[in-house]
Amino acid sequence: MSELYHEILTRIRNNQFLVGVVGLGYVGLPLAVSFSNKKVSTIGFDKSIEKCTKVNSKINYIGDVNDEELIKAVNGRYLEATTDFCRLKDCDAIIICVPTPLDKFRKPNMEFIEAACIEIGQNMKVGTFISLESTTYPTTTEEFMLPIIEKESGLIEGRDFWLAFSPERVDPGNKQYGTRNTPKVIGAISKEGLEIGKSIYEYAVDTIHTVSSPKVAEMVKILENTYRLINISLINELALLCGKMEINIWEVIDAAKTKPYGFQAFYPGPGIGGHCIPLDPFYLEHIAKKFNFDLSMINTAGHIDMMMPHRMSIKISTALNKHKKSINGSKILFLGVAYKPNIDDERESPALKIIEEVANKGGIVNYHDPFISKIKTNSYSFKSVELSREILNSSDCVVITTNHDAFNIDFIVDNSMLIVDLRNTVKGVYDKVYKL
Amino acid sequence: MSELYHEILTRIRNNQFLVGVVGLGYVGLPLAVSFSNKKVSTIGFDKSIEKCTKVNSKINYIGDVNDEELIKAVNGRYLEATTDFCRLKDCDAIIICVPTPLDKFRKPNMEFIEAACIEIGQNMKVGTFISLESTTYPTTTEEFMLPIIEKESGLIEGRDFWLAFSPERVDPGNKQYGTRNTPKVIGAISKEGLEIGKSIYEYAVDTIHTVSSPKVAEMVKILENTYRLINISLINELALLCGKMEINIWEVIDAAKTKPYGFQAFYPGPGIGGHCIPLDPFYLEHIAKKFNFDLSMINTAGHIDMMMPHRMSIKISTALNKHKKSINGSKILFLGVAYKPNIDDERESPALKIIEEVANKGGIVNYHDPFISKIKTNSYSFKSVELSREILNSSDCVVITTNHDAFNIDFIVDNSMLIVDLRNTVKGVYDKVYKL
Repeated sequence: MSELYHEILTRIRNNQFLVGVVGLGYVGLPLAVSFSNKKVSTIGFDKSIEKCTKVNSKINYIGDVNDEELIKAVNGRYLEATTDFCRLKDCDAIIICVPTPLDKFRKPNMEFIEAACIEIGQNMKVGTFISLESTTYPTTTEEFMLPIIEKESGLIEGRDFWLAFSPERVDPGNKQYGTRNTPKVIGAISKEGLEIGKSIYEYAVDTIHTVSSPKVAEMVKILENTYRLINISLINELALLCGKMEINIWEVIDAAKTKPYGFQAFYPGPGIGGHCIPLDPFYLEHIAKKFNFDLSMINTAGHIDMMMPHRMSIKISTALNKHKKSINGSKILFLGVAYKPNIDDERESPALKIIEEVANKGGIVNYHDPFISKIKTNSYSFKSVELSREILNSSDCVVITTNHDAFNIDFIVDNSMLIVDLRNTVKGVYDKVYKL
Repeated sequence: MSELYHEILTRIRNNQFLVGVVGLGYVGLPLAVSFSNKKVSTIGFDKSIEKCTKVNSKINYIGDVNDEELIKAVNGRYLEATTDFCRLKDCDAIIICVPTPLDKFRKPNMEFIEAACIEIGQNMKVGTFISLESTTYPTTTEEFMLPIIEKESGLIEGRDFWLAFSPERVDPGNKQYGTRNTPKVIGAISKEGLEIGKSIYEYAVDTIHTVSSPKVAEMVKILENTYRLINISLINELALLCGKMEINIWEVIDAAKTKPYGFQAFYPGPGIGGHCIPLDPFYLEHIAKKFNFDLSMINTAGHIDMMMPHRMSIKISTALNKHKKSINGSKILFLGVAYKPNIDDERESPALKIIEEVANKGGIVNYHDPFISKIKTNSYSFKSVELSREILNSSDCVVITTNHDAFNIDFIVDNSMLIVDLRNTVKGVYDKVYKL
């Protein structure tokens, strides 16, 4: 154990250190606020001037961040945001919270991680602890990041700096579990790195669970989200079968939930959205190929997921058919475009894919979402309309794509002539309501 | 609501009725005991003279049944067993707990249900309530059973008798949840049948959850077990990948479990065994074909499941290879052949399939299981050997196929030269231990 290690550890334990959080999105900002609320000096880095200005002006833009906590952090001078990545050299710990999207061919897009590693490598000082939080394929930390940082910095991991992986577990809109009370997994390349990382994260998170390597930590996050992907895909597939067999899948799930062990309920919907579940498993599929391994469960789930929006457009078409109408020329109003209820995020939302397909087929599309004022699908742009009696009355079909709590379901049912309910939002049985 | 209905319901509520349980296996006997413990007169029916004699002699043969409760039930004259199906005519309620296996081509084998329906139809009296507990494909109760019973009895459902489906949820070896405290789902053809069924089951089970039809109840059970099938299959597939990537899957699962929401841990193993999880989903697959529907998740899970025993034999071969040995001619000792720990049931156990394959390849097979004294694989018969220092010392490879609590792991590790641990039973790291 080096002198440098002991010096750094002592400074961390005495809260004489500076944390840099790279990426001020739905992961980075809550984490930065959590650190600063424990009086840890924190700098948020982001390429977006807009985001940095907002943070410094105490304007909150992330649903999971508490306004008061942000104000307190900035007022107390524990938190500031900057677009100046040179200031990474002042940081003792750098936590990377950048996006890891898939490209259009469902391959990992590593450009944000790569750019962060280059910036860090070129700016960091000796004795820095670096942690990646972005979901990615196992081996990324050691085989992708490490060479870039060592090359750009000329420093050696385990001697001059430490590198770790600690997956974010943010569940946007979750009122019960946030950054502080969700246990955090961390795996580092060296034992010293693990100890330093644990000491740092303990300021922001109540419980730290250490694992033996970064790749174990990388796999943990993929397992969590793959579990969700395959279970949602299973229940979506069973929902389609139940539709054909005239069995109410929602009633089935409610009954299965009464089993007090060995079951967890998942609910069907028009497809899988968000920035995690539809993407993360495909990071694993990517690296599995290198090991000549076919992940058949993920593959199959991906197929179901991909076809769901199309299947939903068929449901709309079938419902309209009962009224002797076609999608082509019908006014179709979509309620909710966020990928899950009560949030303002439409990334990967199946609603966008259904809207695209319905518009392509000649449907006259409107949408309403209290959280999202405008959307872009592949080929179209829309603005949210007001949810009025008139728009409901004049729509040939109303499609409930997201079950925001704000929706007045009685009002919607009373004023619509035909409803396709993809979220089991309408309780009770109505002739004019078709359910998934 | 008929007079008959009110008369029956009154008799049930006053405990002036007789229950017949058809099939005295791991579902039927605990249920019969549960009824008789509430002083409901109960007759158990079984084709096996041996089982009936045991029950009447108060000799318990089902792990989940409490010896004292069985004795109390028989001594109190609340429970008797008989092979005489004519006595079905004395019963007010008949509950069918017969096996529903798959044939060798993974197709549902309905002969036991059919036989029960014929016996019941030929013997039942007017006013009988009939419930099926055996797991089967949705529509069985109404489309398979109902016509047989009506034809054989000449009676009409809803007027002369009532038919329902109420899936068993027995989890053999579960110390926390048994017949009485596991909520029970029931769906009946008619409203009267549902009310009667609920009143009857309330004697044996604390919580009854009613659903709108037998086919919903049938689907509930399939959903519960399909959920388990696909999650075990996923984790088995990931375990194989992790093996290639040199990631410890058990460590991954332990870390993922720290997520306080949206995750349920499943553990890998040498394959899926027992009478439920490997079978039930294929009942659904069977009926899905009638609806031109391909259940891709179940299909894929089935593929993984099917290949696991073969993959495990490869693991054994790979481990032996490190010692410059082949399966052919090596002494291989299997520890545990039950399909899960601490039970005496080897049905569908992957251990049997691995043993068959290893023996076919020329391995000299022994096995030890404290609960199962002899086994038959497709082509071989074996008797359990004593777990001695000598047998461990003289085996080229010891394979832990089932993690019975009774195993003294330190003793096994100390005395074996090579161990293939398929259940993460050996803690700590040893050169001679290979894990799944």
